[in-house]
Amino acid sequence: MARIGFIGLGNMGLPMAQNLIKAGHQVEGVDVNPASVEKLKAAGGAAVDMPGVAAGRADVVITMLPAGQHVRDVYLAPGGIVESANPGTLLIDCSTIDVATARDVAKAAEARGLLMLDAPVSGGVGGATAGTLTFMVGGPAQAFVRAEHILQQMGKTIVHAGGAGNGQAAKICNNMILGISMIAVSEAFVLAEQLGLEHQKLFDIASKSSGQCWAMTSYCPVPGPVPASPANRDYAAGFTAAMMLKDLKLAQDAAKTSGAVTEMGANAAKIYSRYVESGEGSRDFSGVIRFIRG
Amino acid sequence: MARIGFIGLGNMGLPMAQNLIKAGHQVEGVDVNPASVEKLKAAGGAAVDMPGVAAGRADVVITMLPAGQHVRDVYLAPGGIVESANPGTLLIDCSTIDVATARDVAKAAEARGLLMLDAPVSGGVGGATAGTLTFMVGGPAQAFVRAEHILQQMGKTIVHAGGAGNGQAAKICNNMILGISMIAVSEAFVLAEQLGLEHQKLFDIASKSSGQCWAMTSYCPVPGPVPASPANRDYAAGFTAAMMLKDLKLAQDAAKTSGAVTEMGANAAKIYSRYVESGEGSRDFSGVIRFIRG
Repeated sequence: MARIGFIGLGNMGLPMAQNLIKAGHQVEGVDVNPASVEKLKAAGGAAVDMPGVAAGRADVVITMLPAGQHVRDVYLAPGGIVESANPGTLLIDCSTIDVATARDVAKAAEARGLLMLDAPVSGGVGGATAGTLTFMVGGPAQAFVRAEHILQQMGKTIVHAGGAGNGQAAKICNNMILGISMIAVSEAFVLAEQLGLEHQKLFDIASKSSGQCWAMTSYCPVPGPVPASPANRDYAAGFTAAMMLKDLKLAQDAAKTSGAVTEMGANAAKIYSRYVESGEGSRDFSGVIRFIRG
Repeated sequence: MARIGFIGLGNMGLPMAQNLIKAGHQVEGVDVNPASVEKLKAAGGAAVDMPGVAAGRADVVITMLPAGQHVRDVYLAPGGIVESANPGTLLIDCSTIDVATARDVAKAAEARGLLMLDAPVSGGVGGATAGTLTFMVGGPAQAFVRAEHILQQMGKTIVHAGGAGNGQAAKICNNMILGISMIAVSEAFVLAEQLGLEHQKLFDIASKSSGQCWAMTSYCPVPGPVPASPANRDYAAGFTAAMMLKDLKLAQDAAKTSGAVTEMGANAAKIYSRYVESGEGSRDFSGVIRFIRG
């Protein structure tokens, strides 16, 4: 069992840290929100004031933070994780951030003899609580081997996507497909409505044909065909439109920086941006169908 | 066994008619191309000069034509199918055409006491030859019941999508999702390439995650992950880019006429239009990835 420093005890981080405590690890948590730290303590964890302090005492450091700037700060600031961790410490950043920051931080960590992985997740708060997250992992094989059993205590599917930053790359590529295909499915249902074709009929046909996609068959944006989808509970999230917009913007940042042309990805980002601006950012991302319906 | 008039013996129509002959029907074919008619005769069919003549002698008329204008002509022209067919004749249009024409023709047929179905297919020339097409059928239940066993002799999946025009509606809604999601998957692979994420890694992750879609898992636009996909044979069609563009334009026509907003569908039509204009119209539609790669 390891001594784990866990930085970022938000909606995702807290249940992940709790699962590590249940698995028998000694978890020391850091968060700007005292209430989250108290919940960790109630679950059997300990509180530490600063990320650097937690890192200096840990075998493994896990971070789960909102954006690239936070990751850069806690890892690279004076007295931060990279400066404070002992050589050989395993660092796992589970935040979803831009590829460039993930690679910069990994490079700085490697230069100090640390083992760094980017390991963004999918599965949402439900998956974090149930311990069924998917981890998309980038970084050296040596670090992946050490991390795998720990990630398995928080998740079900652990995939090594290649070198540093590739976990982030895999996540934004996947979520760009998801964002686009959710709009595609929504537009098709709206067109079907206008043409007098029933939702269930379109579902029955497309779900068994070349239009089949996860956005339709597992997360259908109209109520009825898939009883578990958020459409059946007034689009309560789930995965919020704001989170989808964040990922689509990260994909666009990566496309611009790397020189890839992703015209449909850019269009999807614009549509989700307008949807979020309409005040629906905390609604499930499949609610975009109501925005498309107008 | 029925006497069937079959109008349009092209790449799709000829093998469909041949399957009806194999099933024991008496098939009389009409086509502007004498070579196609000869092939039908060689398979045991008969030749007739005009659609109206074939219709006047048939229990069932099947049409498989390139576009709405052809359908309008052969059904509605003086001496055409609607004027010449005996009351009670079953008319099945398997062409992929605009919803408005399908509904206009069905209305004219109904007014003359004929039973009319629109029944566009998916499955391509391979499916037509093997008799494994999917038929998406619009029209009255009474006509569907009579048509079902005949369609089963040319196809595997026969779905009744509702009233007149709903077969066309289902097909364009499905294919709009397909056209958009193929571009989405292609953009994701191109972005992955630029970020140094291997094709197979992205496939392994997205195919089991929320980016899963038919365009990726059955028709992958990069060679390797799905050995049967056209990407493995230099994008030999398959389903041509020109055919995809046709369907995306039909979807846009239907959206404009019916008042649906399908911004991503419009964007997909533009991208396929540019791809076809680049001289690749006869290439498989998954070849659009090469165009996106630039």
